[in-house]
Formats: sequence, structure tokens, C-alpha cells
Amino acid sequence: MPRRADPAERRRQVAEALLRVVEADGLDAASLPAVARELGATTGLVQKYFRSKDELLLFAAGHLGDLARTRVHRALTEAGDVGIEEMLLRGMSVVAGAHPDTRDAEGRIWLAFVARAAFHPGLRELHLAGAREIRDRCRNALAEAVRRGEADPDLDVQAAATALAAFADGLALQRALEPEQFTAAVVRGLLRGCLDKIFAANGGPK
Amino acid sequence: MPRRADPAERRRQVAEALLRVVEADGLDAASLPAVARELGATTGLVQKYFRSKDELLLFAAGHLGDLARTRVHRALTEAGDVGIEEMLLRGMSVVAGAHPDTRDAEGRIWLAFVARAAFHPGLRELHLAGAREIRDRCRNALAEAVRRGEADPDLDVQAAATALAAFADGLALQRALEPEQFTAAVVRGLLRGCLDKIFAANGGPK
Repeated sequence: MPRRADPAERRRQVAEALLRVVEADGLDAASLPAVARELGATTGLVQKYFRSKDELLLFAAGHLGDLARTRVHRALTEAGDVGIEEMLLRGMSVVAGAHPDTRDAEGRIWLAFVARAAFHPGLRELHLAGAREIRDRCRNALAEAVRRGEADPDLDVQAAATALAAFADGLALQRALEPEQFTAAVVRGLLRGCLDKIFAANGGPK
Repeated sequence: MPRRADPAERRRQVAEALLRVVEADGLDAASLPAVARELGATTGLVQKYFRSKDELLLFAAGHLGDLARTRVHRALTEAGDVGIEEMLLRGMSVVAGAHPDTRDAEGRIWLAFVARAAFHPGLRELHLAGAREIRDRCRNALAEAVRRGEADPDLDVQAAATALAAFADGLALQRALEPEQFTAAVVRGLLRGCLDKIFAANGGPK
């Protein structure tokens, strides 16, 4: 790895090396020695920044979450003055792994971490905080759409937000397994169809 | 394991032992020696039935698929003479891990196999065949609903089937991670809401 870097930057470099190992060979392969090899460094150097594989896994999962948050923030900022449906399409495209910057292979990295979270209390806690954040942001966006008159006043905002978040996870899962069929454009089209149904209830079918 | 059993029964017993190991400790822990320990047998005996962990993984994944098919078949048979929406609710509840017989812990076993399939060509092929089967059965059911006048004649049957299958996968994923919040009843309620929207288009909102 590059000679000069502050500790925070070093930790990010190590986490990114871990993600490259996971992308190539899966999460089981991602031992500290394998990460060190990927960096062209010694295992001892990696252990200067992460005492255990567990600590590295948690940091890398947090790094993945931050990457998604940054993409959502940028996608919403770039959107300019658009309606809530368009904002939700942009944000949930990131969750579904269908943001234009998302490489196909990122899906299987995400899926490896999610599956591991089902057995790993620390990763699970981190995953659940992210899942709650997504559902809350959907619910707030849908409530705002109702206030603005963009969505049906009778919309069950909580149920719609929960369903939308589950749909995005399912699309991300299918995209991770079948990136050739579930291209980013196909996934965005399916998200658009789901959102159209929520928003079309206001003022009849589009 | 029990003394007397034919080879097919023995293979099922070994696969079920593997699934118990996966349920407890994840897919990484599921080595042939660990499966032998779970069976109270020697690794050599396990190897009489499966030459490699890979062969055992593929067989166990096929066994999981057969279990799901059996549950769907039974759920549809027990339904008697109901409409297509109810049939889809029953079948897709199995896919979403929300069939009344599905234990909470089964979700993380399924998720472990799906995540591994993203890195394992043989498992991926098996997974994709299952995913295609689910989408095809949804598409056929929705086409039949249109023919019977139970759904809108303008329904895009292919898109609706693809979206429904993705939604069920997302629910299964969330149920695997949060079985306390996404109980079987909650998941069936969310599936019902999704199906109501597809079927309500015929003859106005229910």
C-alpha cells in the first residue's frame, strides 16, 4: 500500500482491500493474510490497524454503508427540484444496487455481508440500523408526498415504506445473482413501476 | 445415524445434518467433519455418500428446493377452490419464508445458500433454475387471472410476475435478518397488500 497515509486513510485502504478479496472469492476467503497479500503488505501491518478479522469486517460493513449514503446524497442533490416520486426512485435505486455508478459485482459483496449478518450479532446490529434508516427515510418521503398532495391522502405510509424497502432488497438480491438479466436499467424500471402504483392512486391511474 | 437406511435416505440424512450445522454456525462452518460430528458418524462414512463438500452443498440446496416445492404443492392443494389471488398468496408465502410450517431459523439457511450461489457456479445454476420456476409460475397464474377476469386485462403479466418474485425474495431476506419484526403473519400481510394492488385494478379499489 502507499507509503504515506494517516491512520484513518490506512484503515479505509485495508477495508477496500478486504472488499476486493470478497468480490473475487467470497467472504470466507477474506482472512487477514489474504487481505495483506491483496495490499502487498504483511499480516502484521494489517493487524496494526485491525486487531481481528471481526473488527475489519465491521469496519468494512460500515464503509459499505457510508458509500451507499454518499451515493444517495449525491443522487438526491443532483436531482434538483423534482417530485418525491423521482427522489424515491433515485434513492432506492442505490439500495437496489442499480445506481449508475454501481458495478455489477458490488451486489455479491453486499449479499455476502447480509448473509453473514444473519449469524454475526455485530454485523446484524449494523445491518438492522441501516435497514431502519432506509425504511424511515422512505416513510418520511411518503408522508411528505401526502402532505404535498403528490400521493393519496389515504396511503398507509408505514406499510408502503416497509414494502418499498423489501422490494428494493429483493431487486438487489436478484441483481446480485443475475446481473445480466437484472441490469441497472431493468431494476430502475421495476422500481419505477412500483412507485407509479403508489403515486398513481392520487388522481387516478397514469 | 440410524443403522438401516437405503442410500437415498442416507443422503437425505447427511443433507439434513448439513442444514442443522448451517443453521447453528453458518455455511463456513459446514465442513464434512462437522457434518459427521452432527450425525455421530465418521467423516469416512459421510464421504461414502458425498465425495466432497461441494457435492453435499449442491445436494442440500436441491433438497431445500424440493422442500419448498412440497410446501407450495400442499398449500395449493389444501386451498381447495379459491381465486388466483389466494393461490398466489399461499405459494409466495412459502417463497417469502412465511408459510406457517417454516421455522424462523430457516430464513438464514436459505440466505446463506443464496449468498454462496453468487460465488459458486453450480449453486448459482440451481438457484437461477428455481428463480425462473417461481417467476414462470407467477406469470402463468397472473395470465390465468386475466383470462378468468380476476385481474385487469391490461396487466403487464411478465413485469408483475418479476416484481412479485423480487418482492417475495426481499421479504424473505428481511425475515431472515429480523424474524422478530417480520413474523410470518406480518410478511403474509405485506404480500396480501401487494397482491391486492394487482388484483384491485380489476373493478376498482377493494
